[in-house]
Amino acid sequence: MKSNVHLVIMAGGSGTRFWPRSTSKKPKQFLSFSKNPHETLLGKTLCRFDSFVSQENRWVVTTETLKEPMKEFDSESHLKVLVEPQGRNTAPCVFWAAKELEKIDSEAIMMVMPADHYIPQQEDFLKTIHQAVAWAETHDDLVTLGIQPNRPETGYGYLKKGQPLSDDAHEVSAFVEKPNLETAQTYYQSGEYLWNAGMFVWKVKDILRAFDEYMPEMNEIWKSASEDVQKAYPQLTATSIDYGIMEKAKSVVTFPLDCGWDDLGSWTSLENVADALGIQTEFGVVKSKSVVGIDSTGNIVDAPEHLVALLGVHNLIVVDTGKTLMVADKSKAQDIKQIVEKVKEHYPSFA
Amino acid sequence: MKSNVHLVIMAGGSGTRFWPRSTSKKPKQFLSFSKNPHETLLGKTLCRFDSFVSQENRWVVTTETLKEPMKEFDSESHLKVLVEPQGRNTAPCVFWAAKELEKIDSEAIMMVMPADHYIPQQEDFLKTIHQAVAWAETHDDLVTLGIQPNRPETGYGYLKKGQPLSDDAHEVSAFVEKPNLETAQTYYQSGEYLWNAGMFVWKVKDILRAFDEYMPEMNEIWKSASEDVQKAYPQLTATSIDYGIMEKAKSVVTFPLDCGWDDLGSWTSLENVADALGIQTEFGVVKSKSVVGIDSTGNIVDAPEHLVALLGVHNLIVVDTGKTLMVADKSKAQDIKQIVEKVKEHYPSFA
Repeated sequence: MKSNVHLVIMAGGSGTRFWPRSTSKKPKQFLSFSKNPHETLLGKTLCRFDSFVSQENRWVVTTETLKEPMKEFDSESHLKVLVEPQGRNTAPCVFWAAKELEKIDSEAIMMVMPADHYIPQQEDFLKTIHQAVAWAETHDDLVTLGIQPNRPETGYGYLKKGQPLSDDAHEVSAFVEKPNLETAQTYYQSGEYLWNAGMFVWKVKDILRAFDEYMPEMNEIWKSASEDVQKAYPQLTATSIDYGIMEKAKSVVTFPLDCGWDDLGSWTSLENVADALGIQTEFGVVKSKSVVGIDSTGNIVDAPEHLVALLGVHNLIVVDTGKTLMVADKSKAQDIKQIVEKVKEHYPSFA
Repeated sequence: MKSNVHLVIMAGGSGTRFWPRSTSKKPKQFLSFSKNPHETLLGKTLCRFDSFVSQENRWVVTTETLKEPMKEFDSESHLKVLVEPQGRNTAPCVFWAAKELEKIDSEAIMMVMPADHYIPQQEDFLKTIHQAVAWAETHDDLVTLGIQPNRPETGYGYLKKGQPLSDDAHEVSAFVEKPNLETAQTYYQSGEYLWNAGMFVWKVKDILRAFDEYMPEMNEIWKSASEDVQKAYPQLTATSIDYGIMEKAKSVVTFPLDCGWDDLGSWTSLENVADALGIQTEFGVVKSKSVVGIDSTGNIVDAPEHLVALLGVHNLIVVDTGKTLMVADKSKAQDIKQIVEKVKEHYPSFA
């Protein structure tokens, strides 16, 4: 255990991406993507740090909507939970957590991790995290982990590697937005780009100094609200930590991470991890009690309590929660949000 | 009540047509196709005769597999249940019932009715039944009810109307097999054809005489087995009453019946009755708690306990029983049998 290392987990989430399996009260981080239905993404995110972050150094930033689900998850109140009065993107969330940590130790290392990513290769992850922590302890840089791409993905932003600083560390020479397929292919082939995974390691004082430099309004609002979260939060600049700080900061360092990471951003992303999860079948990705099928391919089925029968169907997303049944064409996966909007309007308890 | 009228309901059924809603232990006659989930087709078939067939004149012929479900249905043992040692099509079933009735009254009227047809217009049905019973009481003919077609259906056999015998009765000049679409259209336009619905009315002695004439082996087997059903049944000719008797008999009379009848032979047949059942939506036929959808048409969805969400899907059959979830392309509806075969083989409790 390293007493000077704090883990800050960003656990908001609106629950639309894996709807109807996920809902506003049960977003992705509370779902399991492993064989054990009790191994939630959030649970695994915490477990991952068992060997070096102590209980009292674990923070979760979440939203008002998720206060109750979070209490249920953390029924013995081991976690320090910061409940945002309202979701305002990641910059205010990182800022608030840093201000809380500053009260304890401004020299402390702060690791910022999303709650809902899929990381199967635990040891590879930890090795890189330890490197990043060691770097942050000895440098004033802001460290961001970059995922070694395994395909020309258009769904993620990228980091461009700059000068190597050690065997593993690189400067980040640019943050780039989600590319089109052609550009993604160039990035992938060049070997010079990493996926931006939203995982950060820095000293508390270093990120706060960056806030002072690139988002000075944050501290001003904080002070003028007398550090009252309820007052300050609605005024804090609602932007991402990437846009607000990382893209502007001078000394950003990355450690390439090769650990099977996926952010599981949509139902179709299951196809990337289906083999590892053992749910790849001849009919597509199928999570079910059992499955039979005839002439059916490329489907994504999530119906763990059902015998599933597929007949002459292709490229569908089928989700059965017992309460809600969604059948969607895979090519319309991005429109699931619109379905959720309709459900919110007419049947809010199902959203 | 007419004490000389007996109702014989043919209630076999293998449960594949509406699988997974129907199963081998719960074939179509035990399903509800009305707003009240307790109004099963069999229940409604019985109710339909409440005004003129007394309790002790109600017979049900069923199979060994359905013995228990039938006991559950008829928990107070009001029905006289004949359990076939094995299913051997409709001729043996009618023959056995007629032999049982002969012991009571060979002059009695015997009405043979399928257990699993959909008949919404009760009064029209009863009016025609009364005509048919009156005819059978005063003639030695075999009466078969013929459904007035409302579309050029290729899924049913047809009766060709011959000479009119009264305002309503017609001779049947021919029994014809399921036609192709072109022929069905000719039939429909001609007004001379009726759907063969498998509903018969005759005196016990008249049908037994017809058996003696056209299937003399039946009575011979019956006698040589000393009227022991278990011994006789495996030897009885396994054919339909249509093929064995009706197509050959000389004096077959029909009464055209116009009562919204449908035999509900497959999931797609729900489209014919969806308006009447109030389950027609812009997304197709949908039986669910609630439904939301975007860009989805022509589907058939049976998920009464679920909120159903459809996105960019067309012409699917989706059935969710809570235990089994089937998603099929509507054009493959006739292959559901093959799916059921697979299920029977690998997961028999779900078939």
